[in-house]
Amino acid sequence: MQTSPLLEALMEALRCLPGVGPKSAQRMVFHLLQRDRGGGMRLAQSLTRAMSEIGQCADCRTFTEQDICTICANPRRAQSRQICVVESPADIHAIEQTGQYAGRYFVLMGHLSPLDGIGPEDIGLGRLQERLAVENIAEVILATNPTVEGEATANYIAEMCAHHNVLASRIAHGVPMGGELEMVDGTTLSHSLAGRQPIKF
Amino acid sequence: MQTSPLLEALMEALRCLPGVGPKSAQRMVFHLLQRDRGGGMRLAQSLTRAMSEIGQCADCRTFTEQDICTICANPRRAQSRQICVVESPADIHAIEQTGQYAGRYFVLMGHLSPLDGIGPEDIGLGRLQERLAVENIAEVILATNPTVEGEATANYIAEMCAHHNVLASRIAHGVPMGGELEMVDGTTLSHSLAGRQPIKF
Ligand SMILES: [Zn+2]
Ligand SMILES: [Zn+2]
Repeated sequence: MQTSPLLEALMEALRCLPGVGPKSAQRMVFHLLQRDRGGGMRLAQSLTRAMSEIGQCADCRTFTEQDICTICANPRRAQSRQICVVESPADIHAIEQTGQYAGRYFVLMGHLSPLDGIGPEDIGLGRLQERLAVENIAEVILATNPTVEGEATANYIAEMCAHHNVLASRIAHGVPMGGELEMVDGTTLSHSLAGRQPIKF
Repeated sequence: MQTSPLLEALMEALRCLPGVGPKSAQRMVFHLLQRDRGGGMRLAQSLTRAMSEIGQCADCRTFTEQDICTICANPRRAQSRQICVVESPADIHAIEQTGQYAGRYFVLMGHLSPLDGIGPEDIGLGRLQERLAVENIAEVILATNPTVEGEATANYIAEMCAHHNVLASRIAHGVPMGGELEMVDGTTLSHSLAGRQPIKF
């Protein structure tokens, strides 16, 4: 837009958002200018506060503007003596939605990836080891992604847990509920066969 | 994200952008927090300036932070004595890209739409009439979208031009009917500009 350097700059700045290309950036700018300047201003304020105030929980490493997040600070959450290890804060959200888990979390913010130079310290395992040593933990539930890196990371942490005499468990992998068996990929199906459970009455 | 009200607020604020749903808002927030806080801060600053400083050109109504945009302020642009009428600032961008046009523009920021209560004044036709009366204009090129509303708007303006003894022309319908001007490729747009026809009554 040769008629407005500010407009051009905003189109460029929007490209920092994943999935936003030149065309959608243009559509966003015109939408905001023509129909929602208030929304654009609120977005700017929200961005500024979030980028400058959100840090990581000192206990579980999830994103929070507090020193200790509300989940870690909740004494009822500590009672279960469980820690669920996930790769990202979004995974906490997904697990919370199930309503099936009442323990605490530990967020790796990634996974081990030696080829990319991402080692144990980069995913906070020093802090996890501290917690295993100091807190009275009964079980570490490994809920990393079912990928090669996620599996390797889960195995690495399981060994750490064994070293501290803490039970480590891995979430079950298998056929997704509500899906059709023939649509499931072979690897998943292998896992679900290997991980079969006896039916008890 | 029950662990961070600021994060939740940002996810909500991002929804003001067209095409951004809950899932992509979440992906954007995590991407910025984990990998590009600098980009997020720059976006916030750019948004603030754009939303508060960008207005409309007093002559052509396109988005600009100046009183008169650079195209209107360019005396060489006035020499052609042509005004190209488009529906949106994005259309100016598309036409400029063809390199086929050296005149000035008039941006309607929409089109006539009686059913939605959008009349001539809402699309700035009062200002266009002023320009037809005061400036020595040789030709008005009607480059509204090839839609029912765009055609109706073009015809309305053509009548206005006839009243002021100014030649009105319509860009050739090499532009596919029912599409939006800003989506058209440059070659098609060049052809449609070159093949414009005077509107006769
Ligand atoms: Zn926490
Ligand atoms: Zn202008």
